[in-house]
Amino acid sequence: MVMAYLDHAATTPMLAEALDAYVAAAREVGNPSSLHAAGRGARRLVEESRERIAAVLGARPSEVIFTSGGTESDNLGTKGIYWARRGADRRRNRVVAAAVEHHAVLDAVEWLATHEGAEVSWLPVDATGRVDPESLAALLAEHGDEIAVVSAQWANNEVGTIQPVEELSRLATRAGIPFHTDAVQAVGQVPVDFAASGVAALTLTGHKLGGPVGVGALLLGRDIAATPLLHGGGQERDVRSGTLDTPGVVAFAVAVESAVKTRAEYAQRVAALRDDLVARVRTAIPDAIYNGDPERRLPGNAHFSFPGCEGDALLLLLDAQGIACSTGSACSAGVAQPSHVLLAMGADNDRARSSLRFTLGHTSTAEDVDELLKALPGAVERARRATAWKTPR
Amino acid sequence: MVMAYLDHAATTPMLAEALDAYVAAAREVGNPSSLHAAGRGARRLVEESRERIAAVLGARPSEVIFTSGGTESDNLGTKGIYWARRGADRRRNRVVAAAVEHHAVLDAVEWLATHEGAEVSWLPVDATGRVDPESLAALLAEHGDEIAVVSAQWANNEVGTIQPVEELSRLATRAGIPFHTDAVQAVGQVPVDFAASGVAALTLTGHKLGGPVGVGALLLGRDIAATPLLHGGGQERDVRSGTLDTPGVVAFAVAVESAVKTRAEYAQRVAALRDDLVARVRTAIPDAIYNGDPERRLPGNAHFSFPGCEGDALLLLLDAQGIACSTGSACSAGVAQPSHVLLAMGADNDRARSSLRFTLGHTSTAEDVDELLKALPGAVERARRATAWKTPR
Repeated sequence: MVMAYLDHAATTPMLAEALDAYVAAAREVGNPSSLHAAGRGARRLVEESRERIAAVLGARPSEVIFTSGGTESDNLGTKGIYWARRGADRRRNRVVAAAVEHHAVLDAVEWLATHEGAEVSWLPVDATGRVDPESLAALLAEHGDEIAVVSAQWANNEVGTIQPVEELSRLATRAGIPFHTDAVQAVGQVPVDFAASGVAALTLTGHKLGGPVGVGALLLGRDIAATPLLHGGGQERDVRSGTLDTPGVVAFAVAVESAVKTRAEYAQRVAALRDDLVARVRTAIPDAIYNGDPERRLPGNAHFSFPGCEGDALLLLLDAQGIACSTGSACSAGVAQPSHVLLAMGADNDRARSSLRFTLGHTSTAEDVDELLKALPGAVERARRATAWKTPR
Repeated sequence: MVMAYLDHAATTPMLAEALDAYVAAAREVGNPSSLHAAGRGARRLVEESRERIAAVLGARPSEVIFTSGGTESDNLGTKGIYWARRGADRRRNRVVAAAVEHHAVLDAVEWLATHEGAEVSWLPVDATGRVDPESLAALLAEHGDEIAVVSAQWANNEVGTIQPVEELSRLATRAGIPFHTDAVQAVGQVPVDFAASGVAALTLTGHKLGGPVGVGALLLGRDIAATPLLHGGGQERDVRSGTLDTPGVVAFAVAVESAVKTRAEYAQRVAALRDDLVARVRTAIPDAIYNGDPERRLPGNAHFSFPGCEGDALLLLLDAQGIACSTGSACSAGVAQPSHVLLAMGADNDRARSSLRFTLGHTSTAEDVDELLKALPGAVERARRATAWKTPR
């Protein structure tokens, strides 16, 4: 029924080898915190997985904190570091984050403001969605000794723009401030090296790279303190309690390793498909606006505004023809609001609401692009008629 | 290598039908928050799972909040409700919890005290580990209008004692205070009905009842406010953000349904095995102390102190003969401390440190008990010699 799945940034199919690894581990019993042989067997699987993930991401094994996924890691990387820093120094009550963050950072930071009394500074972006390191430098000059944590994503989940993470991280670190990055969309798509990037904390998650849903990690520098969000048995350096999900962790490690090791070839193949998609969409719909940075963007991401269309209507018209795509982050879908990302990039409401995201991934083929191009022109035309009828412009 | 797995309270094998359900769902792609057909398919699986869980636990579907497991649910049921109640009424700054709670409640409550300035009252227990409802009544009489939330487990994870949850819940509710219960050890072992129990919030988790690790739920009454621990996409009534783990949720629902529907027969079979185990241990080791309530306890739980033994040494001696058991909660294993549960029951340090927990479950057989009884007398004798040599008494 699905002719073309073009929503890999929302979630991508689980790799067969990751699922096989899940099943093999799930057939064994043992809590990794138990001292007996069954527990030690589970612990061994978890620690081997930790080492595999650390090895391909330039981290030490002890820097891999397993979590339930991107949202939890983002909350821990922002709230957890904020609480720890503020706890050590009461003056450090300010959080800095990019205006285009995923809601898991955005809403966590807003909660710190409304609930915990934090001051917040949002880093603006340019028309391509990119943060200018100068804006962070200016904030550090003005508020450097008040800032508890800086968070900026590695790559944007909607428009695919890649941020100058290493520059931002260097500025924050030089000022003595831990820098967190949401790299959920980046790992397996662009080169990510934890140590080389200099970041203090980095979020990744399984289901965006061929692993299971519900398992992710926060890479957390050895010397970076974070107050736990989940208290309990003291697992994971006492930063994240909860029974370790051995099968999930094992499958996650298989997927991370595979995604990173095949990345270069994958990115080349998928970017070529994406470039073909973009060129053909622009030919078919000449007034379509290609959003984001044309160069510094994720290989699988294409994001357009289709003037005169409601993105939601267009999505459903394409869906009726078996094309799966998104109007923005699936995580806030269901709520018809213009994207905060596009608004931050200077788009007006109409342009923000007329946008669609097509994201390719490891199962994408040239046929997927063909299917989209068969359906898109008619769908845009219909959506324009519907919009013209509803809200004359 | 494992001759007898007697640690089902730490984690129990995943049911084959739950694993099959996981695999079938993991082979489909789709984020339940996506609007297209693939997303709606995933959403349907999640909502059917929610309905199945609600139906067998006496809850409404909307009262099922999926989480990453028991630790997260316990943190949400305590911190989340505390924050919401205190936010609505500044005077409500007190948390009440039983002294024998799992660390996921205990440590969450202690953090509220040290970090958020909460006052805490601990409910004492008697020698069997049971909370006296009179002690809660007295607290309510003294501090009723200061209390934000009361938390008491349904059944203890170490000694298996079942708490008078309905009485405790009725007292708290009558005083207008939400009551949370950690029912991780209870669901599938004893009858649990959310609506009939009158509790405001109830924790359960997958891997204690034949489901996957990393998936659980907080049953949260429709009118009960809880401040999220994880902010983001607004999933789960905006109480718990994060991409829903469709395969995990589906497998969890299969396991919950199976555990609840087969419970009566299961409990009878397992309690008979357990009673046999207890009788034979007492015959073999006449001075063993059987801890917990002899009647009001979980069907699979047997918990002993073996005077003159170090529990850890005994555990390893049994492990060498293929017997898997625990000195207490696996979640705090690795840290050699006397159990706070036994201390709260009035045991001294020596008795607390000399204890072992044997827990049976759905794969347990009479042969498991036989294996334990073959190994135990020799192990106790060796452990006593080791202890006598190390610390003469």
